[in-house]
Amino acid sequence: MTSAVPGTTHDDIAALTPARARERFRAGERVATSGWCAGFTQANLIAVPQQYAYDVLLFTQRNPKACPVIDVTDAGSVEPGIAPGADLRTDLPGYRVYEEGRLVAETGDAREHWRDDMVTFLIGCSFTFERALLESGVPVRHLTAGTNVPMYRTNRACRPAGRLHGPMVVSMRAVPADQVAAAVQVTSRFPSMHGGPVHVGDPAALGIADLARPDYGDAPVLADGDVPVFWACGVTPQAVVAAAGIPYAVSHAPGQMFISDVPEATWALA
Amino acid sequence: MTSAVPGTTHDDIAALTPARARERFRAGERVATSGWCAGFTQANLIAVPQQYAYDVLLFTQRNPKACPVIDVTDAGSVEPGIAPGADLRTDLPGYRVYEEGRLVAETGDAREHWRDDMVTFLIGCSFTFERALLESGVPVRHLTAGTNVPMYRTNRACRPAGRLHGPMVVSMRAVPADQVAAAVQVTSRFPSMHGGPVHVGDPAALGIADLARPDYGDAPVLADGDVPVFWACGVTPQAVVAAAGIPYAVSHAPGQMFISDVPEATWALA
Repeated sequence: MTSAVPGTTHDDIAALTPARARERFRAGERVATSGWCAGFTQANLIAVPQQYAYDVLLFTQRNPKACPVIDVTDAGSVEPGIAPGADLRTDLPGYRVYEEGRLVAETGDAREHWRDDMVTFLIGCSFTFERALLESGVPVRHLTAGTNVPMYRTNRACRPAGRLHGPMVVSMRAVPADQVAAAVQVTSRFPSMHGGPVHVGDPAALGIADLARPDYGDAPVLADGDVPVFWACGVTPQAVVAAAGIPYAVSHAPGQMFISDVPEATWALA
Repeated sequence: MTSAVPGTTHDDIAALTPARARERFRAGERVATSGWCAGFTQANLIAVPQQYAYDVLLFTQRNPKACPVIDVTDAGSVEPGIAPGADLRTDLPGYRVYEEGRLVAETGDAREHWRDDMVTFLIGCSFTFERALLESGVPVRHLTAGTNVPMYRTNRACRPAGRLHGPMVVSMRAVPADQVAAAVQVTSRFPSMHGGPVHVGDPAALGIADLARPDYGDAPVLADGDVPVFWACGVTPQAVVAAAGIPYAVSHAPGQMFISDVPEATWALA
């Protein structure tokens, strides 16, 4: 088999259909989804009781770089428009459960944590543009290393909405200095997947004290001459739920995304 | 004075600052705003009681072509983020008031119709990309003629959201056949202002029985060899409020937009 994701050795997971990947996650596989199902859109998940849905939706409208919404369920529905037949409570590798802003559980099956009136928001994920980076010759270090992408809470406050407030979370990819411009160009074509970077070069400017110790995901992989490049991240709602002490929320586990049936090309600008 | 809007003779209105235009509207001037305040973003307005705000916001998320939201007020606030100091109840040339889906008033001052808990949505307007069309050599017939753009209810159903459902409304500009491609290219750069056309060429395909009789705005101006080109329109929420029989809403009068302080270039893709 030829590699569906050039530059990686993960031929098997790259070639999977989204339906088959969701089946494996439903059966219990817990894994970061970078590199899975080449060509398909990956999404962050945040589900809240209906009484918080307006605040979340307004928050996403006011923070489109971190929270580009690609689907919203009706209250109580667990089947998204972007993957008919899927079950949002079981079809991700991992979930986190937040009560009063505290992380109280991490699980592979969120059914027992789901409430009847929950509204689920699916938010574009930067994993979706990683294949385009590879195809442009930009290495994706965590993908080659088989680790999760590193993610950090920053000192950048999001625009508040209703009861929601908190910091922007970013993902980081180390990019060779002479390919930073290409990385900006390629990812800017995917505004619904966070688009171009929010910052290039200086972790301290984002309030990141130690690049080696991310708040979510795995430690970064950097090569000599790499520049750290930061993209807004769909884990932001989790940091916001925590900062604002929202009574109840269920999210994906960072890096363990929902893989939809929508081709990544759907979101790409010319 | 040289013309700030090439191809028009409306030097005076094109050169106005948004603040000065809003002052004139506040003082009572009732006029379509195409061609006003060259270089600044124009917006559609729909305001609803708070209990309908979630349905409206979800509707806009599900219908981004017709309803690209650029600002949302907190309940009760009449000052938008996109024009600090402005008053959304007075600073548009004209308003429409809907009760149970019926148009019950048209006015230049909406203060007596405003309710304390209203949430106002500002939605990008295609007037914002008309200067870019002119600068690319594409004529804008209604602008040259000094008329309002023609708008039509179509047979295209929007994606419903909660209690909201109804048809997409489109604006029409007649474009010389050999410039249709340029019109598509230029307007596609402004996704937050409705982006590229939803249809080119056949009014009947959109369920428009008589192009000469628009549902909103003025009769179209067409020259020999022109092709009718249709863009999704921010009057859509008004058609939806009417179709769904929403108890109460205030909107702009079609074509009589809110002119914000945000430069049009803010929204343009490279």
